Amino acid sequence: MQDCGDVPGARLATALEALGAPEGVAIARVECLSACSQGCAVALSAPGRWSYVYGRMTEADAPDILAGAARYAAAPDGLVPWRDRPAIFRKQSLARIPPIGEPT
Amino acid sequence: MQDCGDVPGARLATALEALGAPEGVAIARVECLSACSQGCAVALSAPGRWSYVYGRMTEADAPDILAGAARYAAAPDGLVPWRDRPAIFRKQSLARIPPIGEPT
Repeated sequence: MQDCGDVPGARLATALEALGAPEGVAIARVECLSACSQGCAVALSAPGRWSYVYGRMTEADAPDILAGAARYAAAPDGLVPWRDRPAIFRKQSLARIPPIGEPT
Repeated sequence: MQDCGDVPGARLATALEALGAPEGVAIARVECLSACSQGCAVALSAPGRWSYVYGRMTEADAPDILAGAARYAAAPDGLVPWRDRPAIFRKQSLARIPPIGEPT
């Protein structure tokens, strides 16, 4: 997740950590995600899966972020059916990147 | 690179392929990069490196895209000094994602 030292990013990180990572998910504070015009950003990535970046997140979104991360972790290829994604993931995608070495 | 079947994306892909990939770079047409409001998008990724997504690209940017990709390929960690990045990469970043397993 993004943590440029700004208050909203730190708040979101703290909210996520307070709720705790679901099974198969690790929460990591990271450097700037270079999506500066899009508020707080979070990224989901795992080996062999599509990576996703979502923006305009707030600490109020922490439960939905973790629910969406759990579904991502549970999907073998990281491709969660559209209807099963939280609304914030459906509507606030910034970008996704295919698995390295497996462009389709 | 993005190829949703739209004409601009296909044009960009063709322009990149016509110029040819620089050393250490492979050009791959991929499914939608989920950055639909940002025109044509391209992604750079490699194992153990930060991944980057750039938007609002046109076929006229093909030479700069390939020059930037070559610098990315030549940087051991994928972190190209800011001044060495093409202007389109400096100004049109949509997001970046840290190396999997190595959040910093």
